[in-house]
Amino acid sequence: MSKYIAVDIGGTKILGSLFNEDGKILSRHKVKTGAHRGREAVLQTLYGVIDELFQSDVKSMGVLIPGVVRDGKYVQMCSNVPFENMNLSKLLEDRYQVPVLLGNDVSLAVYGEWRHAGYNEKHVIGVFVGTGLGGGFIFDGKLYTGRGAAAEIGHIPYKDNNILCGCGRIGCAETEAGKIGMLHFIEKEQKRGVSSSLFECISPGQMFHTNDLYDAWKQGDPLAKKVIKRSVRALAVTLGTLNTLLHPELFILGGGVMESFYEDICEELHNKMLSHTMPALSGGVRFVRCCLGDDAGITGAYYLAKEAVDEPRL
Amino acid sequence: MSKYIAVDIGGTKILGSLFNEDGKILSRHKVKTGAHRGREAVLQTLYGVIDELFQSDVKSMGVLIPGVVRDGKYVQMCSNVPFENMNLSKLLEDRYQVPVLLGNDVSLAVYGEWRHAGYNEKHVIGVFVGTGLGGGFIFDGKLYTGRGAAAEIGHIPYKDNNILCGCGRIGCAETEAGKIGMLHFIEKEQKRGVSSSLFECISPGQMFHTNDLYDAWKQGDPLAKKVIKRSVRALAVTLGTLNTLLHPELFILGGGVMESFYEDICEELHNKMLSHTMPALSGGVRFVRCCLGDDAGITGAYYLAKEAVDEPRL
Repeated sequence: MSKYIAVDIGGTKILGSLFNEDGKILSRHKVKTGAHRGREAVLQTLYGVIDELFQSDVKSMGVLIPGVVRDGKYVQMCSNVPFENMNLSKLLEDRYQVPVLLGNDVSLAVYGEWRHAGYNEKHVIGVFVGTGLGGGFIFDGKLYTGRGAAAEIGHIPYKDNNILCGCGRIGCAETEAGKIGMLHFIEKEQKRGVSSSLFECISPGQMFHTNDLYDAWKQGDPLAKKVIKRSVRALAVTLGTLNTLLHPELFILGGGVMESFYEDICEELHNKMLSHTMPALSGGVRFVRCCLGDDAGITGAYYLAKEAVDEPRL
Repeated sequence: MSKYIAVDIGGTKILGSLFNEDGKILSRHKVKTGAHRGREAVLQTLYGVIDELFQSDVKSMGVLIPGVVRDGKYVQMCSNVPFENMNLSKLLEDRYQVPVLLGNDVSLAVYGEWRHAGYNEKHVIGVFVGTGLGGGFIFDGKLYTGRGAAAEIGHIPYKDNNILCGCGRIGCAETEAGKIGMLHFIEKEQKRGVSSSLFECISPGQMFHTNDLYDAWKQGDPLAKKVIKRSVRALAVTLGTLNTLLHPELFILGGGVMESFYEDICEELHNKMLSHTMPALSGGVRFVRCCLGDDAGITGAYYLAKEAVDEPRL
């Protein structure tokens, strides 16, 4: 029976998983990335993770990269891991003698959700609302990445709000939709002297827990309500933009914020999205929520690996 | 030798063209649409145009629709022509016994420009700035239309400017980028009492000529400069959004406004677009201008027709 390895290379940890033919995870192996040690040391750590899982019936591997991948082979940019400008695929193929496909971590998480659930829709947009706002595109049933980094949905121009985004620009959608933007707003309101139960849950320099925000919101805390209203509006404009531009059939919504708030806000978000969509195009798009949690990415990498040998790309 | 027919169905006229195998136009036939006469009459007029051009060696046809097309066969929505919810492809295939492919007029114009010029880039965005702001997407070397109406780039949420767009929403990019938006602004400034040589060129209820705007702009007319600055900003935000979302390799710019202003503004537009693009993605995208003028659409329809028989879609 064929097996496949999926590896998630992150800034803090490298997580490898061994899949059987049916997509079941047979074993996992996780180690710290130790990115500060430099490229060669991280590469040896990566080899160690794969060596632990590798068996003779492994047919191919899929690797998640937190950055820009070209042609499924080459790491062009990489956040927090010293693998920039590196033909990682070739290194791994030379060592393990099986096909190795790389993909952007967020795009592959969307792909994993889509393939796993078996949705019939072929034009699909994944939206992850967590610390930031990320996404992935499936067009005509295939992952779309453009020149390698498409679907940076959190970084479209949103508003002249004078808030500096982590990307270096001012006013990206992420500055109001994601948790970093929310925290920034909460701290600003705290300085202004408003009162809120949220302040009990935040410590200087630390990210709050989404559950705390959710509880405050459920209890009607005015600041929590303001924070979510602001995020929903930024999401609605972003989704309206995507809907008008790409006319998709399905939005898959996930990430920590969506995991907590989806049931409560999805109808409002859908309606608000339509008000920011070209009216003639507003019918018919469907919302679903993610269901794989943290396994979405490696599941996408597993499908990528499996398809590389099942349906070879020339 | 094989021949192909391309037909452009517009609100005012129906224009048919007979192409040879090399993409040369052998003959054209044009009649008034007479859309007010209803579906059956317009259909007979369409048959008349095709009958005039049809020969036994016509292998296939491509038809431009000013609206939403599903699966290259079905007209779902149609502006100014009474062909909504109609399997036009089947009607024409039954009558002429050759494959008939339909496509959105703007998307096919982009496709025509791309195929005709033979660009190597496979991820391409076409942008037409004229009366409105339209576009088309080519992803992985194929026309992308999503559920049929993708690339409505003029109708993404742009600004809370309180200007009602023709689509029914407020503040679409088109309300500042295209000529309808420009005219609205010029008339508003006229009412405010500013002075401008532009007022000599506009008549109430009539669209101005782009050449008149260009001449005033070249002569340094302050209002003309304001109008173009405003349009360039709306275009830059739109292109920055597209660049961040879709990470394309090539933008093809056309339409009446671009035909006049391209050489003068393309560098400024490119730089401004980059300032509205996620910084990490800003390198490498190329601008080119359209070169087929009014023939872009039928050229795209010709390629669509030709490919339908050269490379049959299953």
